[in-house]
Amino acid sequence: MTTEFIWPIRVYYEDTDAGGVVYYANYLKFYERARTEWLNKMNINQVELLDEDIVFVVTHAEIEYLKPAKLNNELIVKSRINKVSAASVEFEQEIILEEKGLEEKGQSILLNRANIKVACLKLNSFSPCRIPTIVKEEFQRVS
Amino acid sequence: MTTEFIWPIRVYYEDTDAGGVVYYANYLKFYERARTEWLNKMNINQVELLDEDIVFVVTHAEIEYLKPAKLNNELIVKSRINKVSAASVEFEQEIILEEKGLEEKGQSILLNRANIKVACLKLNSFSPCRIPTIVKEEFQRVS
Amino acid sequence: MTTEFIWPIRVYYEDTDAGGVVYYANYLKFYERARTEWLNKMNINQVELLDEDIVFVVTHAEIEYLKPAKLNNELIVKSRINKVSAASVEFEQEIILEEKGLEEKGQSILLNRANIKVACLKLNSFSPCRIPTIVKEEFQRVS
Amino acid sequence: MTTEFIWPIRVYYEDTDAGGVVYYANYLKFYERARTEWLNKMNINQVELLDEDIVFVVTHAEIEYLKPAKLNNELIVKSRINKVSAASVEFEQEIILEEKGLEEKGQSILLNRANIKVACLKLNSFSPCRIPTIVKEEFQRVS
Repeated sequence: MTTEFIWPIRVYYEDTDAGGVVYYANYLKFYERARTEWLNKMNINQVELLDEDIVFVVTHAEIEYLKPAKLNNELIVKSRINKVSAASVEFEQEIILEEKGLEEKGQSILLNRANIKVACLKLNSFSPCRIPTIVKEEFQRVS
Repeated sequence: MTTEFIWPIRVYYEDTDAGGVVYYANYLKFYERARTEWLNKMNINQVELLDEDIVFVVTHAEIEYLKPAKLNNELIVKSRINKVSAASVEFEQEIILEEKGLEEKGQSILLNRANIKVACLKLNSFSPCRIPTIVKEEFQRVS
Repeated sequence: MTTEFIWPIRVYYEDTDAGGVVYYANYLKFYERARTEWLNKMNINQVELLDEDIVFVVTHAEIEYLKPAKLNNELIVKSRINKVSAASVEFEQEIILEEKGLEEKGQSILLNRANIKVACLKLNSFSPCRIPTIVKEEFQRVS
Repeated sequence: MTTEFIWPIRVYYEDTDAGGVVYYANYLKFYERARTEWLNKMNINQVELLDEDIVFVVTHAEIEYLKPAKLNNELIVKSRINKVSAASVEFEQEIILEEKGLEEKGQSILLNRANIKVACLKLNSFSPCRIPTIVKEEFQRVS
């Protein structure tokens, strides 16, 4: 059964641009915060991994910009793991705006959607390496 | 005949992360700088367009991270226009590291590759609109 | 009696640089997030102010970098209002690392300290204007 | 005799925020680019220094925001070294907008001014260390 990880994001001035909306590169920051918090929740410590010369690096990203996020919006990032391989993981992520209307139930608007492929690399050589077993098992447990 | 636009980028501390390489979202900044400089060269003024309530917005991006760019690297962004439609344009962009070796000729290493689809929108409604004719003609001239 | 506003910040890859610590400009982002959340808590809505052509803009900042924040650190931003004038406010802000030791009580380490002066401006002309009365009263209530 | 280092900066979408002007933290990026380019020109290689465990870190910054920089502005960063000590350097930096008017000569508008104190640190311990002699001599030559 697939687990979905939910992470809230507030849009600040730093995230926006002169077009009045979130700058297109910054959605990738939001997605990365959500992945990191998920790893934290799984007790996978990226700092400890760095000390062991292991780093997770994005190797492929596909992003669909459906509607813009705006200043002060309260967003939700939904993350799922699609596929776990020996040396890489595929995430499917969405950014959603929960509009708090006057009516009893708010509306949920999909703003952005991404497919992110992350590889496990040796930090010094940037060559692929197997995902450490305990980490891989965690990924498989939630995918 | 396709025109290629070349734009140089220097990697600064602001672009890197604790992994020692350029942070994955920042390649999108490099690509946008190159597109903007190309527009400037074509005499397409984004600020004037904003004043007319017209904005170019990325609607789809696909990025392949082949090799990491590092602190102080001198990069080159190569941009081409693949397709011009009534209300959108498709860019193909690459980030290249020109290694300056001791030998007579340096080596050219492809670090990153992207397909970026940009739509023309009305700023107030964020609804699609036709690319202004003079702008579209410029895009067609170089594609 | 002075009120202090506390806001937690997690350090992500996006915040760090190749030196392995938070990039020096990014502390200003952390401070701004804390000020914004404080405004939100006071029911001061920056988006509504923007619609009325009013914007709060930093006019002077002094930052002391005492110790570096690192990847995955859980920080706390403490904010106080020092002075409220007709058209400006002065904030005193600190970034603190709460080390969670094995011992019963953790240690609190001051990493960064800032004095931030913010002015109220008309958005179109960027000329100073009086802080709206309701906003000013809120500032005075907590300062 | 004091040497002044001049570095041009173009304002892109990434630098601006929903207020329509450059986000206040990003001026620090502009200043750092100028300092880095100056170091490069003096043949001081920050990457080589990092390999020797030496890093230059900002310990104090004071920034005056006089007028906002805007999208597509062509700015100039002027940098001077005020003081060279055993383990630190003080920079005085300005951001200037050169308005290209219709008249024969343009106007020069001071937008931003900063005092930046940079310390030389051991990367592993973040403890102060003497500036390497060759680097210090370069700083003294231009200050």
